[in-house]
Amino acid sequence: MTERTVFFLSDQTGVTAETLGHSLLTQFNGQDFRQLTLPFIDSDDKAQEAVTRINEAAESDTNRPIVFSTLVQDNLRNIVREGHGLFLDIFDVLLEPLELELQQESTHEPGRAHGMSDIEAYMRRIEATNFALANDDGGISRNYEMADVILIGVSRSGKTPTCLYLALQYGVYAANFPLTDEEFESGKLPDILVEQKAKLFGLTIAPQRLRHIRKERRPLGKYSSAQQVRFELRESEKLFKRYGIANVDTTEFSIEEIASRILDSTGVERRVRA
Amino acid sequence: MTERTVFFLSDQTGVTAETLGHSLLTQFNGQDFRQLTLPFIDSDDKAQEAVTRINEAAESDTNRPIVFSTLVQDNLRNIVREGHGLFLDIFDVLLEPLELELQQESTHEPGRAHGMSDIEAYMRRIEATNFALANDDGGISRNYEMADVILIGVSRSGKTPTCLYLALQYGVYAANFPLTDEEFESGKLPDILVEQKAKLFGLTIAPQRLRHIRKERRPLGKYSSAQQVRFELRESEKLFKRYGIANVDTTEFSIEEIASRILDSTGVERRVRA
Repeated sequence: MTERTVFFLSDQTGVTAETLGHSLLTQFNGQDFRQLTLPFIDSDDKAQEAVTRINEAAESDTNRPIVFSTLVQDNLRNIVREGHGLFLDIFDVLLEPLELELQQESTHEPGRAHGMSDIEAYMRRIEATNFALANDDGGISRNYEMADVILIGVSRSGKTPTCLYLALQYGVYAANFPLTDEEFESGKLPDILVEQKAKLFGLTIAPQRLRHIRKERRPLGKYSSAQQVRFELRESEKLFKRYGIANVDTTEFSIEEIASRILDSTGVERRVRA
Repeated sequence: MTERTVFFLSDQTGVTAETLGHSLLTQFNGQDFRQLTLPFIDSDDKAQEAVTRINEAAESDTNRPIVFSTLVQDNLRNIVREGHGLFLDIFDVLLEPLELELQQESTHEPGRAHGMSDIEAYMRRIEATNFALANDDGGISRNYEMADVILIGVSRSGKTPTCLYLALQYGVYAANFPLTDEEFESGKLPDILVEQKAKLFGLTIAPQRLRHIRKERRPLGKYSSAQQVRFELRESEKLFKRYGIANVDTTEFSIEEIASRILDSTGVERRVRA
C-alpha cells in the first residue's frame, strides 16, 4: 500500500515542478512518497485525466496526494484544482509579486521555460555537449583553446559526468584529461595542458570511494587495488599543488554540486540556464 | 547599463532557484535581465557578501534586483532579506502548507535536494551516464538487454544529447542506434534491434533544421545536401511506420521536451529525479 502519492503537473516537461517539488520534499525526513510526473497537460481533457489519476490515488493511498503544479493557463488550473489533494501552485504565489515589480502582466502562455523559445540556447547546449564528447578523456580533438574549463583527475574521479552536466545544463565548454602513470612518473603535466593552465581544475576523491567505483567496472586487478588507488590519488594531488591548480574533493558531492563548485571557483559564466 | 539584475541564492548548488526563477521570468516578455547565481551561501559572512552584491546592483542598475532564494536556515535568510531587492523566498510560501499536511516540521537543513544524501541515486545516474556513453551511436557494447529505451534516427536528429539527459536527469538507461544507408537500402532494421522492438523509439526532424545542424559539422558534401537529408528522413520515417515504432519530431523541441515525451510515450519510469 502506498502511503502517499506526489504528482508533478505541467503543461510542458515537468522539469520545473519536479525540481522544486523534490527540493521541498527533501526537507521532510522519513516520509515515503510515490512520485508521478504528468507532463504536457495542454487541454481540458488532459487536465480532467490528471484529476482522475489524482482522485484514484486519494482513494487508494493512506493519505491524500500532494500536487505540485506549474500550469499557467487559468482554465486548466481551475480543472486540476478540483482534484482531491493538496494543491500547491508554484506560479500562483510568486507570479503576483513579480507582476507588481515588473509592472507587466505575465503572459500565462505555457511552455516557455524548457521550450524552444530560444533556439540559440538550444544550439549552444548541443554544441557544448558535442564539445564535451569530443574532448572527453583526453580524446582525439583536444581543442583546448575553445574550452571554458579543463577538468583533470584520475580515472573515475567524476570528470565525464561533470563535463556533460556542465554542457547540458549551462552550455559550458568543458574538456577533461585523465591523469595516468605518464604524468605521475614524470611529475609533470603535458605541455598542451600547461599552455592552458588558467583553465585547469582538478578533481580528487577519497580512496575508499574510488575503489568502490572502480570495482563496479573492473572487480579484479591493479586498477581497483587499494595500493594503486592511493598511489594515483596522492600523485594527482601533488600535481595540483605543484602547478597551483584549484581542485575539489568529489567524495561527498553530487554532480550538481561538483559543477556548481567549479563554476563558483573558476568564475566561468553560465552560457545558458536550462 | 544593466536594466535589472536577477540573483539566484542558495545554500547549495542553486539549481532549484535557477530552474524556478527562470520558469517564472519566461512569463514576462521583452525584459532584459542580467542573471547571477550565488551558490553555497552557508555562513553569515557569505550571506553578508550576497547582500553587498545585491546592494551594488541596486545602486548601479536602473531597477532594483530580483532575488530568488532557496536558503533554508533562518539566520541566513534574515541577513539576505535585508538586501535592497525584491526578495522571493521560494520555500517560504510552500513549506508551511506542506508542514501542515505532513504534520511534521521541515528540517531547515541545507543542501538535501541536489546533495549526496542519496548515494544510491548518485551511483545510478553515473552508471546510466556510462551506459549511454558505451551504447552511443550503435557503439561497441550494444548492451540492449539492459536498456530502458533505444533511440533510433538519422545522424544529428538529437539522439546523443537526449540519451545523456535521460541518464543524468533521471537515471534512465538510454542507448541509441544511428539509421544509415545499410538500413535504408535493405528497408530493414538489424536483428539486434528487432529483438528489442518494444524498447525502440524514433526521432525525426524537419529537413531544413537537419541541414542547418549538419552544416555546422560538415559544411560541404553529400552529408548536408538537401537531397541526402530528405532521403534519409523519408526512409527513416518509412522504417518507423513499417515496424510500428513510436516517434517524435524534434524540430520544435528542447532536450527536456524530447526526453519528457519519450518517457510519457513509453511509460519508462524515472529511476531518480535530479
